[in-house]
Amino acid sequence: MKFATFSMTDGPHLGLFVDDHQLVDLTAGWPASSQATTPRDVADMAALGADGLAVANDIAKAATTPRLDFKGLALLAPIPRPRRNVFCVGRNYKDHIDEGLRAQGLAPKPLPEAPEFFTKSPAAVVAHGDTVPVHANATQRLDYEVELAVIIGRRGVNIQRSQAMDHVFGYTIANDVTGRDLQRRHGQWFKGKSLDRSCPLGPIVVHHSVVGDSPDLAIRMRINGELRQDSRTSRMIFDIPAIIEQLSLGMALEPGDIIATGTPSGVGYAMEPPRALAVGDRMEAEIDGLGTLANVIAAD
Amino acid sequence: MKFATFSMTDGPHLGLFVDDHQLVDLTAGWPASSQATTPRDVADMAALGADGLAVANDIAKAATTPRLDFKGLALLAPIPRPRRNVFCVGRNYKDHIDEGLRAQGLAPKPLPEAPEFFTKSPAAVVAHGDTVPVHANATQRLDYEVELAVIIGRRGVNIQRSQAMDHVFGYTIANDVTGRDLQRRHGQWFKGKSLDRSCPLGPIVVHHSVVGDSPDLAIRMRINGELRQDSRTSRMIFDIPAIIEQLSLGMALEPGDIIATGTPSGVGYAMEPPRALAVGDRMEAEIDGLGTLANVIAAD
Repeated sequence: MKFATFSMTDGPHLGLFVDDHQLVDLTAGWPASSQATTPRDVADMAALGADGLAVANDIAKAATTPRLDFKGLALLAPIPRPRRNVFCVGRNYKDHIDEGLRAQGLAPKPLPEAPEFFTKSPAAVVAHGDTVPVHANATQRLDYEVELAVIIGRRGVNIQRSQAMDHVFGYTIANDVTGRDLQRRHGQWFKGKSLDRSCPLGPIVVHHSVVGDSPDLAIRMRINGELRQDSRTSRMIFDIPAIIEQLSLGMALEPGDIIATGTPSGVGYAMEPPRALAVGDRMEAEIDGLGTLANVIAAD
Repeated sequence: MKFATFSMTDGPHLGLFVDDHQLVDLTAGWPASSQATTPRDVADMAALGADGLAVANDIAKAATTPRLDFKGLALLAPIPRPRRNVFCVGRNYKDHIDEGLRAQGLAPKPLPEAPEFFTKSPAAVVAHGDTVPVHANATQRLDYEVELAVIIGRRGVNIQRSQAMDHVFGYTIANDVTGRDLQRRHGQWFKGKSLDRSCPLGPIVVHHSVVGDSPDLAIRMRINGELRQDSRTSRMIFDIPAIIEQLSLGMALEPGDIIATGTPSGVGYAMEPPRALAVGDRMEAEIDGLGTLANVIAAD
């Protein structure tokens, strides 16, 4: 099952793909008789659990349900305004840690013993196709980071590693756009990570049942067509069950929570010489099976 | 003007104090004819701006409006579920920085050049009188931090220092309960700062007009009656205008946003020997003019 959220005159609608190009409007087609509240985005759908998925499948199967062409939709982020900050994992690919140390002129260090969690503001979230401002007055070192993002589907606290995947609804792509100078200057990373519109998310959400438990997916970032990041999600230091186990320790995860799982090497600030994003640059974040999340840097 | 949020059978209600002990129920008394949406908590009120305050004052002045006794209310946090994570400033009092370095056996360092921003999850927020779990499976070093919290009243981005106070709605007390071992282990501070129910907030919100622009307020924390933290809010390294200026750079602040502005010295982990919170400990966070925020540590 693959989902997309799009804009209609009465607000966000949630769609379910019936083939590679067409989907049904679950929000419009949701039966008034259903016990489950009408979903308007992927967070709503995740909160409905298996009952919601069954209703969605019934709508998709009905011969009378109209089909919408994906290309014609005004796409939104799968969860346009998350109910709390996006959870992020820093330094979760060894190659990216190595390039960061090298860029700062630091000697190799032991790998992190525990995931480094930080957050991005819900106001940072934008859709595939939206522009990302260059934020010229805030940063001179705007950078990209392609990441596999996990959408939580079931509430849980102190989730054991062996149970972790039962709490995953699905996957999408995040681009953790970062002001590197801000990230450095403020010590903690939040400030450099939460510029407005600095978290492209999407284009779609692929249900966990399609992707499976230990996703080994090619993950890439192209800037103006040039391949900059090129790795596999199986190279994470802390895999998804480990991230969920540690993040949920003493802190309940909730349906609709978003976890960006870290970026591989190839970011701009670690290039020689370092490169920053500029107005007009086109970022294409790509993960096999999840599509391409494309956003252009715009003037402020 | 002073506000409190409390629980009624139909959900949260917002009250405005008419004297030290009594308040009017703004949610129940809000005129149906008003252009402004009925507020249910301080975030709603902050979003209504001057028009909302005028309506609130009219309700309070009307002789027929019933009075409620503050002591009889089921108090909630002023904003029971913030719309995004609570913004926090780390290391914002020199004495607290010094004690932290000493506790870690580190030499003195230059003061931070910029505020260190991190966040606490909205799910961490609890009210005056609520319990805080000891989180025995997650931390062996639970600690307290009394902080002055700012509630934002007007949206703004790239706010200049000279304009910053126009964006403040009011003030309350936060207790930034922290798992010190988690804070250290995970590098970034988010994990140690976002245990469930680890952000007592309240008991009331005092409007900016009462407190003024450069609050120099006594700020204290007592544990089981013992004075542990005792400072003044004027000793912040980055004052409130500086915090708002730097936090809003490239990131719009929104009405109802909460900013915890850092804690003075006297935290448990820097005591000799270090002390951690235990089941039954009573934390009383106190700021002159804002009242006392009291919470007891409970078994999980």
